[in-house]
Formats: sequence, C-alpha cells, structure tokens
Amino acid sequence: MKKKLIGIDIGGTTIKIAFLAWNGEIISKWEIPTDISNKGLRILNDIKESINQKIVDLSMSKTDFHAVGVGVPGPVQLNVGYLPIAVNLGGFGGFNVNDELSALLDLPVITDNDANVAALGEMWMGSGEGSDNVVFLTLGTGVGGGIITNGQIISGFSGAGGEIGHMPIIPALDPLHVTCNCGARGCLETVCSATGIIRIAEYYLGLNVDANSLLLAHNLSAKAIFDAAKQDDPVALKVVDHFAKYLAVALELLTVIVNPEVFVIGGGVSNAGKMLLDAVTKHYGENIFLAATKNVSIVIAKLGNDAGVIGAARHARGIYVNEAE
Amino acid sequence: MKKKLIGIDIGGTTIKIAFLAWNGEIISKWEIPTDISNKGLRILNDIKESINQKIVDLSMSKTDFHAVGVGVPGPVQLNVGYLPIAVNLGGFGGFNVNDELSALLDLPVITDNDANVAALGEMWMGSGEGSDNVVFLTLGTGVGGGIITNGQIISGFSGAGGEIGHMPIIPALDPLHVTCNCGARGCLETVCSATGIIRIAEYYLGLNVDANSLLLAHNLSAKAIFDAAKQDDPVALKVVDHFAKYLAVALELLTVIVNPEVFVIGGGVSNAGKMLLDAVTKHYGENIFLAATKNVSIVIAKLGNDAGVIGAARHARGIYVNEAE
Repeated sequence: MKKKLIGIDIGGTTIKIAFLAWNGEIISKWEIPTDISNKGLRILNDIKESINQKIVDLSMSKTDFHAVGVGVPGPVQLNVGYLPIAVNLGGFGGFNVNDELSALLDLPVITDNDANVAALGEMWMGSGEGSDNVVFLTLGTGVGGGIITNGQIISGFSGAGGEIGHMPIIPALDPLHVTCNCGARGCLETVCSATGIIRIAEYYLGLNVDANSLLLAHNLSAKAIFDAAKQDDPVALKVVDHFAKYLAVALELLTVIVNPEVFVIGGGVSNAGKMLLDAVTKHYGENIFLAATKNVSIVIAKLGNDAGVIGAARHARGIYVNEAE
Repeated sequence: MKKKLIGIDIGGTTIKIAFLAWNGEIISKWEIPTDISNKGLRILNDIKESINQKIVDLSMSKTDFHAVGVGVPGPVQLNVGYLPIAVNLGGFGGFNVNDELSALLDLPVITDNDANVAALGEMWMGSGEGSDNVVFLTLGTGVGGGIITNGQIISGFSGAGGEIGHMPIIPALDPLHVTCNCGARGCLETVCSATGIIRIAEYYLGLNVDANSLLLAHNLSAKAIFDAAKQDDPVALKVVDHFAKYLAVALELLTVIVNPEVFVIGGGVSNAGKMLLDAVTKHYGENIFLAATKNVSIVIAKLGNDAGVIGAARHARGIYVNEAE
C-alpha cells in the first residue's frame, strides 16, 4: 500500500496542515495559529503536537506516513533545508528546518519556500496538472512565485530562484518606477500586486481624468478597479491594460528563460478571472519571438489556500521514492 | 574501467568532434566541414563515417564508449531529441536526432541546443567548475545562452528555455529599442552582441561627440570599442558603460528567476576580459534586492570553442549512469 503524506504550510498567522493520500487526495486538513513570539521558538513544537494529536484522533500511526513537506515564507537552500530567516514569522530561522522537524516528528522532512511549494501543488493537482513545466505567480499583497521545470522546483543557489515579484521590469524612465518593499526600484511587485494596481490607478487619476469615471466613486482596491473595468469604465480599462502590459513583459521574460508550458496565476488579484486573462493574453508575445509562445497557456489557479499543503505533500512524495513505490 | 565519451558540436561551418575520458579529459578532437546542402542531409552520415574512421585510427572499438552527446544550433525538446529545424544548418531537422544518430553509431545519443551544451561544458570543466548552478552567456555575433540549475540544463517545454539573447530588456522609450533578427523588438542581443555594442557606439557618435574620440578613427568593432575604452577614451567609456548597464539588467533578471552561483561570459566580446567584468560588476545589483546577489560571481569563460564538445560529452555521461559507474 502506498503510504500517506503530510503537507505543512507555515504562514504568518496560521499554520495549515494536511494529511494526504499518495495520489494527492486530502484526507484531513486543519489549521493552528502561528506563534511568532520569541522568533517563532514554539512553531515546530506546536506542529509536532498538533500532528501527533491528529494521528491519535484518526487512529493512525506514524508508520502510515511516507514523509513530510513544509513550505515557509523565506528563502530555503534546496536539498539542505537551511532557512536563514523568515521575517514574516518574527525572525524564525537560523537553522535547518528539515533536521529540526525531522527529529521532532521522526519522519523525513523536506522544506522549501512557500511560493515554490504552492507552485508544485498547482502543478500536481491544480491548474498545471499534466505539465511538468509550470510557472506559478501569486498576485496578492505582494507578488510571489514558483518555477517548476521538469517537475523540479528551481530554488537556485541561495534560494532566490523564483523571486518573480522582484524582477526589475519597470524602466527608470517610466513614471511608475518606484521603490519596492525589498529596497530595489522597478520590481514587478510594485505594479502587479493588489497594491500595485492601485498605484497604477492613482497615476491615471492624477492625470486629467474623465470626471464620470467609476474609480472616483470607489475606495480604490484591485477588486473595485476590475469591477469598474467590467462595466467598461474607460479609466479602469486603461488601468487594467497598463497592469496587463507589465505582467505580460514578466511572462515574456520567463518564457525565454525557463519556457514553461503553463503560467498559473493565483492570489487575490486573480479573482478578476477572465478579465485578467484576456488583458494579459492580449499583450503576451508582443516583445518576444513567435515560436517561444507557441502552445503556452495562461490560466487562473485552482487550489486557493490549499496549494501550499498539497504542494508540500508532493514535495514530500519525492523523498526516497524508491522505498515507497 | 570507466568508459569513454563522444562529444559533437554541429556548427554552421564545421562539426567539432571529440573523444573524452570519463573525467572530461580530451583524448582526441578534430573537425569536419558541415555540409549544409540538401537541408543538411549528409550531416549525420558524415559524423558517423568520421567517428568510425577515428575509432579505427586510434585502435579503439565501439565498446570503449559509453554514449554520445550532441549540440545543435536550434531548439531541441529535452528527453526527446526532436529538432524541428536548425536554420543555420540549411534547414537540417524535422526528425529525432537522438534516434537517427543512435541508429547510425550504435551508441546511445543525447542532443540539446548548442548553447545549453556549452553551458554544461563550462560548468563541468570550465569557469563554472565546482558549481551546479551556472548561467552561461555567449556574446558573439548574437547572444546565446544556457542555464544549468542543480546540474540540469533548462530546455523548457518546447526548447525555448535559456534563450537569453531574446530577453526583452530594452524599454520602448529607449532610443536603442530596435528590431532584433528574431523579429521582436528590444532583445538583449540588439545591444550586448558584438553588433549590439557597435549599435550603442553609433548612437553616441550620432550625438555631439568630442572630435578627438578614438572611435572616430577606427572601423567600429567590439574590439576597437573596448581597446579605446582601455585607453580612457571618454566616448568609448560611455559606450562600454551603457553596454554594461543593459547586460547587468539581464543578469539581475536571471538572478531573481534562476539564481545561479556563477555567470560565465563567453563569446568574442568576452575577449575584453577584465574591462567587461569590471563594467558589468559595477552595475550588477543596482536594481534587485541585496541578498539575491550575495556570493554570486561573474567570470569569463575558459573553454573557448571546446565548450561545446566538452559539454556534449558531459551530457552523454548522464545517460544510463548506473550502467557505467
């Protein structure tokens, strides 16, 4: 019998945990609060206690499980598991997550960046299903991402691989060339996150805008902007088009660098759905050679908040595969 | 005893072939002309005859060899070997190179894009030695490239991975935003190839340039421009700096996407050596977050024209490793 898998997604507010069957089906999933006090000192122990309790509750045993996958909001060295620091977890890190958690759980553990792990989830059971060359972008408060080539996460030499939100794509001459939270200027995140599209809208509203624009009547939000565009508001349509042009450039760069088969767009902004896809598809391919974009698709993510635990479990499945199959 | 390897680098003018020891040492290398007539119909047969003759000449036998690696100037689907078309080989392609050549040579064959294979060569025996996260750029007539992460070539879903020369990095507002040979506009190749740096120089010479500039006395070439810069010619220094800024942006994008440990710069333009490295290093990191560039090095390629056959042999070494070791 194929063993079960454990997927863990450590976020700044909650830790999501799931038990999955070998085929990716979720058997049980739950959340516990993330205790970020004292540099997250209790996080791993809380995970241990919660998992051990759940195993008892479900009348399972440790030997039912193959391995554990973990996603953390920080850079992780591939095949090592060392996490220098996760600033969103109160400074959690400075140790090898694989080793520490493995000792607590008495199971093999593999850890990676949360966005990388979510990318693996969408590849396995989500919108990238059937492909092993997938780029995942989350357009939320920030812009995160994960790159899968030949079924493998690209973490890079020091864990900065797949930092799609920090691609410098806004030229210095562009009026929207501003400083990002990361300290650099011109990052994709400054224009294609939920806050980024508001920045674009504010730029247009600072110009001589039609006084009838729906955007003037709203509190600006990514949702309000897309909603106004859906009602054919001319200013909102310009904002969405401007946003889509930037996003298309990022996808074009990724195309000639890693050439995925599927771009999966997730995060809050992706709730705009078809309107977002239509806007970016219109521009995607304007700046690169034709053959590179052939048969590449751009789709909306499917798994929502489950992408992390599912991808973490998929990552765990890759540990010592010969033993388990 | 570890078996020997065969590396083949099919170029538009010559086909380079080498026999290598398992450890990468070249035992014998030679060239034959590339017959591109009739869509390169004779290419594979010429390779077969040349290799079989060399095996006789060196008193070797087919059984001394593990496998054959091939680099071709065109996109190749990873793990498949299908080459749609190589325009620089008179239209060679439309078939599976692995299968065709394997049948002729009676040895396993693995084929990939020539720049990808050269990247593998520099990773194995060249300037990337010791790292398995290497990005290789060739700055020649065009700009080629290959990306290695975790020791594996990134070919992408349809072979367009690592097409570094066609990264769209020149913004539309830039006076040097021109059409590339690939049909798109704003590609890295249009400013960072040997012809690209001449384009930058022509731009400066079209401005109100100091009449004493050495560039006015030369036939413009990448070498003449770097030579003049080495003599502190103010215009040439501006041209080199402008070139380096573009190149740095490409390296920054690659850093946050695939995060290599080493960038290896090859091709004719890399003969500028330290001046090129100093110029690009000065700008590298200006547009991305600090941690991403940590411990990343930028170096000049070592293997020159041998990178292809060495990398092809390295690729061949990866076939059925269990059998050979």
